[in-house]
Amino acid sequence: MPASYRSPWMTEELDLLRATARRFFEEEVAPHAARFRAQHHIDREVWLRAGELGLLCMSIPEQYGGQGGTFAHEAVVMEEQARICDTSFGFVPGALNAPHFLMGTASHEQLMRWMPDIAAGRKMLSVCITEPDAGTDVKALRTTARREGNEYVLNGNKIFITHGKQAELSLIAARTGGPGAKGISLFMVEVDKTPGFTISKVLEKIGQNGLDTCEIFLDDVRVPVDNLIGGEEGRGFGQLMDVFVRERLSIGVTGVATAERAIELTIEHAKNRKMLGQTLWDFQNTRFTLAECQTEARIARVFIDQLIQQLVEGQPMQPNDAIMAKWWCSDKQCQIIDRCLQLFGGYGYMCEYPIAQLYMDARVQRIYGGSNETLKELISRTL
Amino acid sequence: MPASYRSPWMTEELDLLRATARRFFEEEVAPHAARFRAQHHIDREVWLRAGELGLLCMSIPEQYGGQGGTFAHEAVVMEEQARICDTSFGFVPGALNAPHFLMGTASHEQLMRWMPDIAAGRKMLSVCITEPDAGTDVKALRTTARREGNEYVLNGNKIFITHGKQAELSLIAARTGGPGAKGISLFMVEVDKTPGFTISKVLEKIGQNGLDTCEIFLDDVRVPVDNLIGGEEGRGFGQLMDVFVRERLSIGVTGVATAERAIELTIEHAKNRKMLGQTLWDFQNTRFTLAECQTEARIARVFIDQLIQQLVEGQPMQPNDAIMAKWWCSDKQCQIIDRCLQLFGGYGYMCEYPIAQLYMDARVQRIYGGSNETLKELISRTL
Amino acid sequence: MPASYRSPWMTEELDLLRATARRFFEEEVAPHAARFRAQHHIDREVWLRAGELGLLCMSIPEQYGGQGGTFAHEAVVMEEQARICDTSFGFVPGALNAPHFLMGTASHEQLMRWMPDIAAGRKMLSVCITEPDAGTDVKALRTTARREGNEYVLNGNKIFITHGKQAELSLIAARTGGPGAKGISLFMVEVDKTPGFTISKVLEKIGQNGLDTCEIFLDDVRVPVDNLIGGEEGRGFGQLMDVFVRERLSIGVTGVATAERAIELTIEHAKNRKMLGQTLWDFQNTRFTLAECQTEARIARVFIDQLIQQLVEGQPMQPNDAIMAKWWCSDKQCQIIDRCLQLFGGYGYMCEYPIAQLYMDARVQRIYGGSNETLKELISRTL
Amino acid sequence: MPASYRSPWMTEELDLLRATARRFFEEEVAPHAARFRAQHHIDREVWLRAGELGLLCMSIPEQYGGQGGTFAHEAVVMEEQARICDTSFGFVPGALNAPHFLMGTASHEQLMRWMPDIAAGRKMLSVCITEPDAGTDVKALRTTARREGNEYVLNGNKIFITHGKQAELSLIAARTGGPGAKGISLFMVEVDKTPGFTISKVLEKIGQNGLDTCEIFLDDVRVPVDNLIGGEEGRGFGQLMDVFVRERLSIGVTGVATAERAIELTIEHAKNRKMLGQTLWDFQNTRFTLAECQTEARIARVFIDQLIQQLVEGQPMQPNDAIMAKWWCSDKQCQIIDRCLQLFGGYGYMCEYPIAQLYMDARVQRIYGGSNETLKELISRTL
Repeated sequence: MPASYRSPWMTEELDLLRATARRFFEEEVAPHAARFRAQHHIDREVWLRAGELGLLCMSIPEQYGGQGGTFAHEAVVMEEQARICDTSFGFVPGALNAPHFLMGTASHEQLMRWMPDIAAGRKMLSVCITEPDAGTDVKALRTTARREGNEYVLNGNKIFITHGKQAELSLIAARTGGPGAKGISLFMVEVDKTPGFTISKVLEKIGQNGLDTCEIFLDDVRVPVDNLIGGEEGRGFGQLMDVFVRERLSIGVTGVATAERAIELTIEHAKNRKMLGQTLWDFQNTRFTLAECQTEARIARVFIDQLIQQLVEGQPMQPNDAIMAKWWCSDKQCQIIDRCLQLFGGYGYMCEYPIAQLYMDARVQRIYGGSNETLKELISRTL
Repeated sequence: MPASYRSPWMTEELDLLRATARRFFEEEVAPHAARFRAQHHIDREVWLRAGELGLLCMSIPEQYGGQGGTFAHEAVVMEEQARICDTSFGFVPGALNAPHFLMGTASHEQLMRWMPDIAAGRKMLSVCITEPDAGTDVKALRTTARREGNEYVLNGNKIFITHGKQAELSLIAARTGGPGAKGISLFMVEVDKTPGFTISKVLEKIGQNGLDTCEIFLDDVRVPVDNLIGGEEGRGFGQLMDVFVRERLSIGVTGVATAERAIELTIEHAKNRKMLGQTLWDFQNTRFTLAECQTEARIARVFIDQLIQQLVEGQPMQPNDAIMAKWWCSDKQCQIIDRCLQLFGGYGYMCEYPIAQLYMDARVQRIYGGSNETLKELISRTL
Repeated sequence: MPASYRSPWMTEELDLLRATARRFFEEEVAPHAARFRAQHHIDREVWLRAGELGLLCMSIPEQYGGQGGTFAHEAVVMEEQARICDTSFGFVPGALNAPHFLMGTASHEQLMRWMPDIAAGRKMLSVCITEPDAGTDVKALRTTARREGNEYVLNGNKIFITHGKQAELSLIAARTGGPGAKGISLFMVEVDKTPGFTISKVLEKIGQNGLDTCEIFLDDVRVPVDNLIGGEEGRGFGQLMDVFVRERLSIGVTGVATAERAIELTIEHAKNRKMLGQTLWDFQNTRFTLAECQTEARIARVFIDQLIQQLVEGQPMQPNDAIMAKWWCSDKQCQIIDRCLQLFGGYGYMCEYPIAQLYMDARVQRIYGGSNETLKELISRTL
Repeated sequence: MPASYRSPWMTEELDLLRATARRFFEEEVAPHAARFRAQHHIDREVWLRAGELGLLCMSIPEQYGGQGGTFAHEAVVMEEQARICDTSFGFVPGALNAPHFLMGTASHEQLMRWMPDIAAGRKMLSVCITEPDAGTDVKALRTTARREGNEYVLNGNKIFITHGKQAELSLIAARTGGPGAKGISLFMVEVDKTPGFTISKVLEKIGQNGLDTCEIFLDDVRVPVDNLIGGEEGRGFGQLMDVFVRERLSIGVTGVATAERAIELTIEHAKNRKMLGQTLWDFQNTRFTLAECQTEARIARVFIDQLIQQLVEGQPMQPNDAIMAKWWCSDKQCQIIDRCLQLFGGYGYMCEYPIAQLYMDARVQRIYGGSNETLKELISRTL
């Protein structure tokens, strides 16, 4: 963001949080980011440190170990992570969405049992919905949970599971009833105590390699009935929409913040880079490219800031706004970063340059959280 | 705009204005629009009627015959004009920008002398800045004003003058001093009393043919010193920036409002148009196209609404926001209307279809008010 | 085309034809083009003159009054028409496609009866396929032809008929049998002798206003059985594919040739236009825009030239090539002309500038001859 | 390429070469490609094997150990490499461009001395032109070569050197005279015998990680005068243009061939991938995307095939054609692969999928060989 700009939802409390988050990312993540990417996960100490600083479960009520904050707190952390051009700290999947999947449907007892450990960083939670043949389409989900006495027996196969390797707790969506969303229940698996729960090796990805993305195989995995989230079958997706809104907005926020960061880095590069006796900035093509990028980043920023503010203030959103923010901001993120990278010439292709990290990390934003195509279909249904 | 959406700057007073404007455009403009385009100007009665309804000079103080309103009042009128897919009523150049060019620099006496006639619609005012070799670049302006006794003698050539044929009053930018903006003064010419003031025939344009765009030739045109705006040489562009902000925003508002209208018309068409045993809407390409258009129109709307609100409330704008709104919204307007037109097939090419009018009228929005290229250059200077 | 380039299919004979066509368009069409657009048709003398020069029916065998030439002859005429930035001479629909619709299906006797008049320009021929509810989709065609004794009785409604007003002969596609293409027959209507054949007023279009586009109403129109083309029911679309290939290529050729012309005009303008103490050409954005346009025009040229050559030499084409040429070249035509127009600033919006004519005339190229969407669907079926 | 298509420059001899190259890539490269990427270079045995099969120096005369072939031979190898979606075998920089840099300027004795080893794969050759502050701009090159007795002393710094680690021979561009291209000479450095020649560690890149890209530092590197290429100072860039044409075409060929491969893989995926009870192919968006990609790949193919044929047959090319092919085909490559990847959803982001390799490898094609911006500037100079 331009130095002169302050989002309308910022508060003094959030300024303090921003300072904390900035220090955390600059001191505890950035210096080790290359190593995290090579080993495909951050050090657990960093996650615990985040818990200590209150950066996990920021919008979960305090009684469950959270900070009782809002989505604005989370936006600040996402923006600060974007600033270091890294994604190794799995904030969105691990500390934002995962707890809210639980929050929306679990009973008070269940929340008391698991959330404090999650909020402190003592336990990591993965969420397993996506399946090979169903994508994120709940209607086509095939993993089954069959009740046997005081247990459920789970069988199926889950893919693209973030924190798949590190998580001690794993939330599994499985079918307990008929077709459609109503037949779906969520189960908590305590990974190390549970035979039949197998985790693939970590998958190599184009980017975001600091995150351990795995495949999960469930082969007669037995969980006690107490681990049925919400205590009743078919309630798996009761408050799914709330998580979806947060997820889509978080992709939008990340899209805007990384695009802003790319522009910032590129302006600095262009003004310093000597070419043919001028600077790169002296070429009109450079200036037009950056003026165009800046305009779209600015317009995206105004849009996402309004949505953050509405969410924080509990105002109703226009029905498609979060969906639009997800697809459009992720599209613009990829376009802007691609155009910025081009201005770096050969350097832009070298991983040691932050613009290259931004490029590799960005591409999946148009895919996860509902592919941009799926979202356009959703929008069209309301027109 | 989707029926469910209400801009945050709307008020009950503005609702009443909207109703008035809607009736005016639907009853007094739309039925005659084809004739206005053919004759290249609206009937003067329509302009007088607009004055009677208070639609002219809405943001000019009441003491000068205006309505004492804000830019929001003007935005409402622009939106309502967009709704009928016509541009014959020259609201932006004639009733919005032209009076503000005067407002910003004229003395109290001058405003008392001319503005009430303008506000009532009794006199129309054209603004003559653009020249063949200078474009809208004030620094390169060549028309001269030479003082001789109690008169100024003007010589030069002005192009692309809206209301060139109809205006009784014509505001001429001419050079009284050295180079640059400081050497420029504005003069009021009372057209019918002034020998040497020649008006070309009305130019045929791609669109907006209800407006009389002319070339103006000044050949030893003599104006009394009392017609030097502001009473002092070199003050011509004292408050130019205020008019520029209004002009850029007004292009942005028109861009958004016409894009919204195009989408609305196209959704209706697509749902009714039968093709190959389905409706046009049943094709995914149709739905994706409209979902994409709707997303960009929505994001543009949020941006422009924020700027309107800031202007109305007297809050400071981010420096480039009005410039960004102008170039980006006009770009999106053209893209969206072009994509919508395509969905009409052959009908979209027929002038009797409103989408064709929107298409022809839109193209110049990327050119006037500072070409989009000029504006990108301006943005880049602040990066 | 750059002066240095000569299409590989050019011959010395075609050079002579090019010189003839250039003179014809420059001397007999260009000076009157504005009038032709205003009256919505060329003067009949011009059409007769074209017949005299052998510019009509160039690829129809000599025995029927044609020139016995190839598609290359027709390409030359299209390129020369593009050079004057006008479309009033309805070469493609009137002199290229229309005769081939007849050629492909009529009997020797029928060709002897009608073609010489058509080739000489004494009679104009319109082709009526498109209907309001069916578009160009033959399967959905509803006009009926019912046999009664020695006559057929036609009823239906045709739209977007080029030369609708001027044509003495009108070829009507009507259903004589069951559903689908096999149930379609073609009938020749001699317009002035035929009661029940009503022609709407000429439709105003965004561009191409020198052509008389009309709606046709058939109300118990009676034609002798001898006017059933090919003498047998259901043969209407026997050789339709040949006409389609020609039509798609001709749209492609026009697309490339007008884009080349737009670039040529814009380079000239940019090098001469003074701006801010430089020329417009001195701005890198201008140069990049034109380098990009030139590249795409060049690549399109190589593609279309290969197709022309293959057609002329009777070599097989790759199945989708003509379809690809139609949609892609018309897309590029619109993009390139739009980008060029922008470099003209306000002048580009004035109809007296050829770039404005190119802009208005271009838009329909993405629609007629199979909308670009229809063609993408066709391509996908073969993947 | 569609199975039915055969480039017009193909011959029976080239069919045999294609079969050899296909077997080589499928059997000797593809199975080890992941390892090559991890170690950042192929196994030397593979390079030797290529030499044995005659895949190196294909267009170098036989007297120097080459195959005496043409650019068409090289195009076949590039196409076959594209088929396995890998770039570890550094054909273009190592076996195509590098020998031609030598071929164009070295004396017969020098060619006899070095080329046979290069052609056999016994020695690898790197070409060191690019510098940190000069990019590929020869005019700004700062590395110096100072004559001292029978030696030249080289000092400077080279970046983005492909095969930097593996090459036994390194061709260094250095300044022996005044400014501009005329002051440049080329020197052969025999790497292991030459003190002061330091090679950085291999740089991590977004893609193409099977190639060892390094930085080279020259610190008083002494080479005998016999290693001055061509035996005379200032002849370094005598035949540079020939290499540039080959390099630009080779980027174009790779662009087209990888785009074709991406489309092929994506069609297969789309037809098999089940989604929401249909296949991915059943969605119109999928079909339109692939029809558009296929069209642009086809048009690019026709263009590049014509250029290959002209080069092979020694016909003159239009001056900008190779430049246009480079920038446009690399642009389309990136766009097409990006669009195809999107249709793979989450799988497209996983490195084990070939589409992900294509994506990562593609990005630099718009940068090296003259950035696309540099090339547009070059094109504009000839307009």
